[in-house]
Amino acid sequence: MRPQDLIEKKRDKQALTRDEIAFLIRGYTRDEIPNYQMAAWLMASFLNGMNEDETTALLEEMLHSGDVLRHDEIAAPKVDKHSTGGVGDKTSLVLAPVAAACGVCVPMISGRALAHSGGTLDKLEAIPGFRTNLSLEEFKATLQQCGLALIGQTKEIAPADRKLYALRDLTATVPFRPFIVASILSKKLAEGIDGLVLDVKFGNGAFMKTVDDARELAQMLVNAARAMGKRTVALLTNMNQPLGRWVGNAVETMEAIEVLRGNLAGDFAELSLELAAQMLVVGGLTDDLQEARNRCIAAIQSGAALEKLRACIIAQGGDPRVVDDVNALPQASQQCSINAARSGFVSHIATDEIGRIVMDWGGGRRKLEDPIDYAVGLYVQAKLGDQVRAGDPLLTAYFNDQTKLAEMTARLRNAYEISDNPPQLDPLVKEIL
Amino acid sequence: MRPQDLIEKKRDKQALTRDEIAFLIRGYTRDEIPNYQMAAWLMASFLNGMNEDETTALLEEMLHSGDVLRHDEIAAPKVDKHSTGGVGDKTSLVLAPVAAACGVCVPMISGRALAHSGGTLDKLEAIPGFRTNLSLEEFKATLQQCGLALIGQTKEIAPADRKLYALRDLTATVPFRPFIVASILSKKLAEGIDGLVLDVKFGNGAFMKTVDDARELAQMLVNAARAMGKRTVALLTNMNQPLGRWVGNAVETMEAIEVLRGNLAGDFAELSLELAAQMLVVGGLTDDLQEARNRCIAAIQSGAALEKLRACIIAQGGDPRVVDDVNALPQASQQCSINAARSGFVSHIATDEIGRIVMDWGGGRRKLEDPIDYAVGLYVQAKLGDQVRAGDPLLTAYFNDQTKLAEMTARLRNAYEISDNPPQLDPLVKEIL
Repeated sequence: MRPQDLIEKKRDKQALTRDEIAFLIRGYTRDEIPNYQMAAWLMASFLNGMNEDETTALLEEMLHSGDVLRHDEIAAPKVDKHSTGGVGDKTSLVLAPVAAACGVCVPMISGRALAHSGGTLDKLEAIPGFRTNLSLEEFKATLQQCGLALIGQTKEIAPADRKLYALRDLTATVPFRPFIVASILSKKLAEGIDGLVLDVKFGNGAFMKTVDDARELAQMLVNAARAMGKRTVALLTNMNQPLGRWVGNAVETMEAIEVLRGNLAGDFAELSLELAAQMLVVGGLTDDLQEARNRCIAAIQSGAALEKLRACIIAQGGDPRVVDDVNALPQASQQCSINAARSGFVSHIATDEIGRIVMDWGGGRRKLEDPIDYAVGLYVQAKLGDQVRAGDPLLTAYFNDQTKLAEMTARLRNAYEISDNPPQLDPLVKEIL
Repeated sequence: MRPQDLIEKKRDKQALTRDEIAFLIRGYTRDEIPNYQMAAWLMASFLNGMNEDETTALLEEMLHSGDVLRHDEIAAPKVDKHSTGGVGDKTSLVLAPVAAACGVCVPMISGRALAHSGGTLDKLEAIPGFRTNLSLEEFKATLQQCGLALIGQTKEIAPADRKLYALRDLTATVPFRPFIVASILSKKLAEGIDGLVLDVKFGNGAFMKTVDDARELAQMLVNAARAMGKRTVALLTNMNQPLGRWVGNAVETMEAIEVLRGNLAGDFAELSLELAAQMLVVGGLTDDLQEARNRCIAAIQSGAALEKLRACIIAQGGDPRVVDDVNALPQASQQCSINAARSGFVSHIATDEIGRIVMDWGGGRRKLEDPIDYAVGLYVQAKLGDQVRAGDPLLTAYFNDQTKLAEMTARLRNAYEISDNPPQLDPLVKEIL
């Protein structure tokens, strides 16, 4: 087999066999097939498409390019959640301890912020001392001890994905569903899970702008994960405004802790509980979703979920005082309000722009080695559909970098639209696949 | 400008500007843009197409990636011919000395055998001592002295094409017309020509199997060369059987010398004279094609063309005795006839297979460093439409490698079809653009 013949086959719109895809991915992972041949194959696949069998083969080869964990010593069902990324989305910090408190083992390997969307690792690292770079041995030990562990990707997990992702980024071949599916699932399935809950977001703060695009990706993810024998459910959820009230790193961790302390009001708590309940069902603890929801609420009200988070923070080297006193998290030195210029209803929030503003104000990285200002954050006073009067606060910004104040407040003001009539709004959870 | 943004633009079916193509080709030639980004751009262009402006920009950038020769010291018009490649096609060895004898300067940079098609350089090197690897200084000196010079590509000529061709070969992006046009013309225009005659072949021995495909390529070549200010004409010529009577290296050189000695019978002499006459017209020596033909015939009958070839062979270090005695060329030690199994009319010759058989019997290379058996060759006894009786010879093979005799004669026999009725045949020159 020669790479150029397989490139030609895909160039001519033919499907590759499982063996042919295995030849490409194995050869590439071993540095036997050069970047330039993979780049040509990536582009040919992007433009001519890949069928379900090809996608599954790609996923399996990427998954088995590295270690695939097993947790046979843990009796509990292993279930994780994956989100396609949003703004203000800190559900992992709630649902992982909640699910763990209910008897689900949560071996969660997360990512960092990407474009306008936040990253779970960055939020966790706002907790002083918290280490996300555990070795796989430490990861397994934490999991066994706490029932959850929250880390970043290690070099042993899906090395083909790491190599391919870097190449896709430089060859304009990122936004192609079969690649996205294989990339997401190869990392998630390597965690050693029995089931997976997918939070596929749509809207102006999501990577998929429309429900149709989100549904298509969700269906591909569900099909591929089920083809690999994993119980899987996907929720299409609304990302047309920030989730919850806070956007940033430390402030989102704070908001998650407040939910675990029992503050269950609002869309963020609602989605966190919905996803956690789905994890219980996917894990086989109950078939009744309402009962699963009740168990999750009980785990919060009893304090059991908060104790799970505390145990995880201690096990991963973080300062556990944050659980009792959110002031132990980094605090911004300054604040300012952005107020409504007119009266009416909040009809549009440029959610991706909200995310970028937090990044640009120090809350995100341009390059991997950049430091993060964990304290920077926004409080979302006015959510979609809220009625406001001229002069009412829309947002409060918490920041340290005064030099960007004028630019950022101008951008924040432009991110809101206010209209005379209440807008039509999509529900938080639009569909379940 | 970033390469990935230009790749994305082409991926999304947009045309690149001249500046964007210049950025890519210059960056790639200077090793500033990596192979993998060019590979992705090659495949995106292959699948999404390039318009005429993009093709012209690509051609110009490839042309100016290296030296573009000028021959201001030579008053005669500089004209070359390019063929898309065929079997038994040795017209360059005739038309270059004929055109030179008529007052056209012929600065010809040729290639080697590719796939089933022969290469002018390999045929020239069948002449003992003949050097095709002249420096550009030697090339110019030979041209000034003889009015023709016949060499291979040098490192100074179109380096972008050399780099891109190697990459295209490994990424399944060779058979794409805009790339073919830019590759052919960047090398030819770097010769410093005023005009160009294109021999675009169609048929089972050509790279373009149908007249339509050949016409489309020819039109693109003509448009692009004219856009660069070069007088250009293209002939669509028939490659459904070997051109002339001989296929090989030394045997084709011999056949060319015989035409120059005055043997003007047959399709090979006819096409050589037609192309040479077109070179006179393109060079502006006359507007009357029939007069041009007559001058070419006169150049042969007077012996002037043969003397041009002799001068060129001497200037390039070859043994000039071959001009007077073709036995000075390499001779095969053995021969055998392939005879008709039945009576009828020769209705089909698998021309590409004929070319491959000569290659496989030692007349071509698998790798660049392989030696060539210059003596190996076929004599084509029966041409398309000829009536044969069972037992009549179709071909005579001249060879040195006895071990392949059974295999090769079987393949040769299969390359001929004989039918009850005479076949419908296309003319030698089908169209002129």
